[in-house]
Amino acid sequence: MNYDHIFQEAHEAFLYYKNVSGKDKADFLRRIATGIESEKTTLIPLASSESNLPEGRITGELGRTVGQIRLFADLIEEGSWVEAVIDHANPERTPAPKPDIRRFLTALGPVVVFGASNFPLAFSTAGGDTISALASGCPVIYKAHPAHPEASKLVGQVISKAVIDSNLPNGIFTHVEGGIATGQELVKHPIAKAIAFTGSFTGGKAIFDLANQRAEPIPVFAEMGSVNPIITLKNKLGANIDSLAKSFVGSLTLGAGQFCTNPGLVMVPSIHAETFAIAIKKELEDIAAAPMLHEGIAEAYYSALSTLQDKKELEWIQVSEAKDLIQAYPALAKIKAKDWLEDDHFQQEVFGSFALMVVYEDFSELYAIAQRLHGQLTITVWGEDEELSNKIDLINLLEEKCGRLLFKGVPTGVEVGFAMQHGGPYPSTTDSRSTSVGAYAIKRFARPIALQDMPNALLPDALKEENPLGIWRTVDGEFKK
Amino acid sequence: MNYDHIFQEAHEAFLYYKNVSGKDKADFLRRIATGIESEKTTLIPLASSESNLPEGRITGELGRTVGQIRLFADLIEEGSWVEAVIDHANPERTPAPKPDIRRFLTALGPVVVFGASNFPLAFSTAGGDTISALASGCPVIYKAHPAHPEASKLVGQVISKAVIDSNLPNGIFTHVEGGIATGQELVKHPIAKAIAFTGSFTGGKAIFDLANQRAEPIPVFAEMGSVNPIITLKNKLGANIDSLAKSFVGSLTLGAGQFCTNPGLVMVPSIHAETFAIAIKKELEDIAAAPMLHEGIAEAYYSALSTLQDKKELEWIQVSEAKDLIQAYPALAKIKAKDWLEDDHFQQEVFGSFALMVVYEDFSELYAIAQRLHGQLTITVWGEDEELSNKIDLINLLEEKCGRLLFKGVPTGVEVGFAMQHGGPYPSTTDSRSTSVGAYAIKRFARPIALQDMPNALLPDALKEENPLGIWRTVDGEFKK
Repeated sequence: MNYDHIFQEAHEAFLYYKNVSGKDKADFLRRIATGIESEKTTLIPLASSESNLPEGRITGELGRTVGQIRLFADLIEEGSWVEAVIDHANPERTPAPKPDIRRFLTALGPVVVFGASNFPLAFSTAGGDTISALASGCPVIYKAHPAHPEASKLVGQVISKAVIDSNLPNGIFTHVEGGIATGQELVKHPIAKAIAFTGSFTGGKAIFDLANQRAEPIPVFAEMGSVNPIITLKNKLGANIDSLAKSFVGSLTLGAGQFCTNPGLVMVPSIHAETFAIAIKKELEDIAAAPMLHEGIAEAYYSALSTLQDKKELEWIQVSEAKDLIQAYPALAKIKAKDWLEDDHFQQEVFGSFALMVVYEDFSELYAIAQRLHGQLTITVWGEDEELSNKIDLINLLEEKCGRLLFKGVPTGVEVGFAMQHGGPYPSTTDSRSTSVGAYAIKRFARPIALQDMPNALLPDALKEENPLGIWRTVDGEFKK
Repeated sequence: MNYDHIFQEAHEAFLYYKNVSGKDKADFLRRIATGIESEKTTLIPLASSESNLPEGRITGELGRTVGQIRLFADLIEEGSWVEAVIDHANPERTPAPKPDIRRFLTALGPVVVFGASNFPLAFSTAGGDTISALASGCPVIYKAHPAHPEASKLVGQVISKAVIDSNLPNGIFTHVEGGIATGQELVKHPIAKAIAFTGSFTGGKAIFDLANQRAEPIPVFAEMGSVNPIITLKNKLGANIDSLAKSFVGSLTLGAGQFCTNPGLVMVPSIHAETFAIAIKKELEDIAAAPMLHEGIAEAYYSALSTLQDKKELEWIQVSEAKDLIQAYPALAKIKAKDWLEDDHFQQEVFGSFALMVVYEDFSELYAIAQRLHGQLTITVWGEDEELSNKIDLINLLEEKCGRLLFKGVPTGVEVGFAMQHGGPYPSTTDSRSTSVGAYAIKRFARPIALQDMPNALLPDALKEENPLGIWRTVDGEFKK
């Protein structure tokens, strides 16, 4: 199929839409949020039946989806996100007069967004990627995830209706269905200016490579997940075995282990390894089997487990066996740190509720583990304040390896706010300088442009001398409104 | 050669240096600036003799170099550049308590910087790339440009002395000499976390491809130059033929046309094409031949011209012929817009003082040219306010194609300030979301990290509750000090 028409329409829409005011863009986004809410009674059972996720979970996800749409609406209505900077002219300067230069963030152009299977709403059609791209001023060509086609179509219709009701050009949003070949065509199209993707490493890396091989390479923001290690320190763990086992198991098995941030690796001091394993096993026994997103994912989960079962270094605490083609049971195995350090295979993500407990003997072994860790979305350290305070070197090293470092609680349950960083060093993402959750996700789809000696009347409002938007700006090096 | 030792030392230095205070990093940078100034009488004639650039030009460049070092020193001493964001906890929130999350920019890790031939100081050893990386907290492995080895070595010694005088670990800065194979080894080293490069498209693209093929792909900030089109509109040009010809020729021939921003393309309405060409020719006659950076560059210049001389679509206004192996004469040819539109070859950069005058018949032809333009560092539009005000569509389109859009003056003479954007869509750079000149060049070498529920005592100063640095931060969505 030829996508020229879709992209040309998106590009025409772009030239119009990028100059639409933040307020009008915000109204458009809010219409999407309201539209989703008004389809709630149809959408929730539909998304639930297509994804095997319980209705309660989808209800929560819908709330999160409209919440984040409104966060972006507020952000662009306020307007300071464009990082406006003004350096005034100085005609008297010697040897050469100084020109007037003004800089702000401008939208990149049409963006291709790939929906995720594990969040049929919050990371799909009107999810964080689509909405942050629309918020920045970029039209979106959305490639629906085949795992929830009807829910995707319905949300697509809501967006298209919001486009019409906001008197915006059609090309602002296009819903495309298809498989891998379709996705490849979209990534390769010369008018596409950026890609957003949430999914597997294999999928994300293939898109990244394809985008870099284009005549014009374009940025790929692929969030490919990670094993989100939890590191437990002796005193903290010793004093809280049962409650930490409960927290850990809750996070491991949340959504059948199909979140980007489920912990798949837990580092445990040898002195507590036995008791912690028993406590975890006890918690796991209370966890019912949960259906996975689709049969392919359940199959991949059991196949990964079966490969691991051949590894002689592992001692299984809880084995999960496929009882049907879709239900998943959590699983846990134990490995000695010295064995784990020998083989990078032990830090590959198993998508689903499997975790590996790595038993370390002393701090130097723990430090060696931290050195070896691949890039992660999150790392969690459970330690008493006192034992943390003499592990500065470890914390320092861990900062290098992740996008978010936690000291309490669990990595699942990603807050949508200003301070969230959901991204991290490769291979957890293809661009550690970006986040796919939270307000600053918008910055992925914009780039700075400097306007030099532009007549004031032609300047975008964000850069006009009189600051009609009342936004924060850096003026001659000073931050002000 | 094996560079493991260099990179390991750089990484060790990184773990220390990233946590050095902004004030102490600023002192270190200022020591470099002072060190360069104190070597002035040796350095200026040395850099001049190695680059064939006149001493006056090198003197100016030295001023710019130390000026930008001090700009970065001021920036990191003040500290707000880290974009600190705090979202406070809310333990009462339902259904789940809200954690405390704090986010700021943290340094990427060891950076490989490639020096440029055309700026032996400002874009070389202690140039914008090295200094912005050091400012962000990244150690630098510097690959010297073979065109000015002695000047590079001398500046490298100044930096190494500043490292010692600041009691910083050795690995903060390493000066590496070598050719293409050396450069490739540095790019491929697993400890390298980013690359900065200024030079040719061929060089930049090769590095970009290599970096993307690594087991861990890393960002490449390659500034590869462009043809920096100047678009002239009828009324403005008609009323200022002679002065605009003078400005144009001045910018075209500055530094023998060896700046990234020399204009190599000028769009002229047919009604004034003849008179403007005559005025330019008159100006060109006053320009003496200038030596190019080295024989290889002069050879490439004359070879590119000779290829163009075979193109039947070109009418030559001024032909430049090689009289020796290093001196370059400016050259100018004219082409009809309809011919220019037929062949992308006509927008390839000729490094040196050659420009192509594209003669357009009407606005629709000009718009078609703008649509066809590749990504540029700069585009300049010379028009009266009135004729600009009805060309909004054109300006809108041009914004898509460049990093800096000028309405007065010429693209050469890149200001080093806060509002500068020196970068632009591919192929002018490999990352249009970055700048290699100006204060925000520092952001290339940092990425956001979120710290969740970290004990206050362990937080970096930028994120401590009491704001000991007194920096601007976004706290619960509000900008404040």
